[in-house]
Amino acid sequence: MYTIGIDLGGTNIAVGLVDENYKIVARDSKPTQIGRDYDEIIKDMGEVANKLIKDNNLSLDDIKYIGIGAPGVLDNENGIATDNSNFHWTNYPIREKLQQYINKPVYLGNDANVAAWAEYISGCGKGAKNFLMLTLGTGVGGGIILNGKLHSGSHNIGAEIGHTTFKAGGNQCGCGNKGCVEAYCSATALIKMAEKDVSKYPDSVIAKAEKINARVVVDAARENDEYGVKLFNEYVSNLAQVCASIINFLDPDVIALGGGVANAGDFLLDKVNEEVKQYVTFSSMMATKIMKAEMGNDAGIIGAALLGE
Amino acid sequence: MYTIGIDLGGTNIAVGLVDENYKIVARDSKPTQIGRDYDEIIKDMGEVANKLIKDNNLSLDDIKYIGIGAPGVLDNENGIATDNSNFHWTNYPIREKLQQYINKPVYLGNDANVAAWAEYISGCGKGAKNFLMLTLGTGVGGGIILNGKLHSGSHNIGAEIGHTTFKAGGNQCGCGNKGCVEAYCSATALIKMAEKDVSKYPDSVIAKAEKINARVVVDAARENDEYGVKLFNEYVSNLAQVCASIINFLDPDVIALGGGVANAGDFLLDKVNEEVKQYVTFSSMMATKIMKAEMGNDAGIIGAALLGE
Repeated sequence: MYTIGIDLGGTNIAVGLVDENYKIVARDSKPTQIGRDYDEIIKDMGEVANKLIKDNNLSLDDIKYIGIGAPGVLDNENGIATDNSNFHWTNYPIREKLQQYINKPVYLGNDANVAAWAEYISGCGKGAKNFLMLTLGTGVGGGIILNGKLHSGSHNIGAEIGHTTFKAGGNQCGCGNKGCVEAYCSATALIKMAEKDVSKYPDSVIAKAEKINARVVVDAARENDEYGVKLFNEYVSNLAQVCASIINFLDPDVIALGGGVANAGDFLLDKVNEEVKQYVTFSSMMATKIMKAEMGNDAGIIGAALLGE
Repeated sequence: MYTIGIDLGGTNIAVGLVDENYKIVARDSKPTQIGRDYDEIIKDMGEVANKLIKDNNLSLDDIKYIGIGAPGVLDNENGIATDNSNFHWTNYPIREKLQQYINKPVYLGNDANVAAWAEYISGCGKGAKNFLMLTLGTGVGGGIILNGKLHSGSHNIGAEIGHTTFKAGGNQCGCGNKGCVEAYCSATALIKMAEKDVSKYPDSVIAKAEKINARVVVDAARENDEYGVKLFNEYVSNLAQVCASIINFLDPDVIALGGGVANAGDFLLDKVNEEVKQYVTFSSMMATKIMKAEMGNDAGIIGAALLGE
């Protein structure tokens, strides 16, 4: 048996056929063309999925279910996309609509939650009881698994770890509030930090970079560039405090870090794992591991394809 | 059938006989005499419990189980008090020891978690699926119930909401870190805020108070005292941001506020419920209610007596 995972992004509707070992055995996609009527997007989803089944010489009987990961607030219980500001969906009956094109059980999840679910079932969270994932990219996405279950809250608006307060009254966040985790721990935040004082460090490799991004800062720190080290240490200190807050709050087995900044790998993880201890209340009993997410770009498709597990 | 709830505090070992309607039908206590050998404390627990059964013309057969709420890290699975800095307990087999005096199943829980459990089963959290409690007292205690289960984390060191970061680098917290929720939302924090600038407001009723406490500040705000209103608004803003972080993170049905500051009642709750919305990411879908805890001082005994539910 196979399942189908659909990762609905702003650019593409990515569809994957996933086997029982959680591997994508075939994939296809269509452009999302954001802004068009949502019924057309759902129709395209159905067409790509049906084509994928046919192209692989399978029938509907070989498909257990379909999972969809999408931005915004998804209500899996009722099969509804409650709110999606990018797609302008409000209470859109996504399950019922898709079943008009492909009659299978349909599971829904928020895209960040779905990526965390993939990581939990098949990546660095395997075997954990309580697991959190932070995606350190343009923003900070979050996913929470507690007692083996995806936790999106009583009204599906939780797991927005990026918008919990980290420094009240501090840096402006894109959400309108000040001091959110996202305004300190996203790749965007790291870039802003670097841009702020770069003129004071004209000899830094960061000042000489064509364009400042997270990788430029991390590489500068690796090379012991003074400004790079300063920025990286500040970022690590912020991230370590955020991880410690998560541990003091929920005490998970694993916190997975994904997204662009996590590509720094052990250079980042070793420092965060070390520094986190000083902020954990019962640090001598702390056993949470902070790890790099393993699933990469396929987490969206695979996580969606695992939503029925 | 009855259960026995034991609330082990720094001053008293409070023991209650609790009926099936979650009411304390009889109670007794002995001084804790903190610092003495822990075997003696457990012996006293057993004696008070046995006396309570006898005094009420009951036998051991009428008792379903015993629950203990105690400070520190409690491992209910293994029946151990993993860590208690006040009592100097480390991996103390509290279940086995107590069963030498009274042979019944023994459940363990951290005191703040136990109080939240009482509130969830029998107080303002009744019927909720996801529930959090903050105790705004000398410190800020926390308790978390998710999917109907008490959540203390994978290593029982979670639910320390008071020691999650609220304003990184900010006010010194008793735990050694800076900017914890406790350093902004405890009664102690409110008193410190009031003491800081009181000399600038010599005409304030706060300046004239014999001793500044949370009640003095709240009453001053109620009476429209300029300094009182200023302090109270600042406190409300902090607390609203903390509640919003909890909602963005876990999206519970109810957040219960207990402890001294919560005695301000609707005067506090109305403002927090109103202001919280501006910090919640999906505020139009927010349905979390912030309520006053109902169980009061008996929450420790009743929550302990309900640990087996």
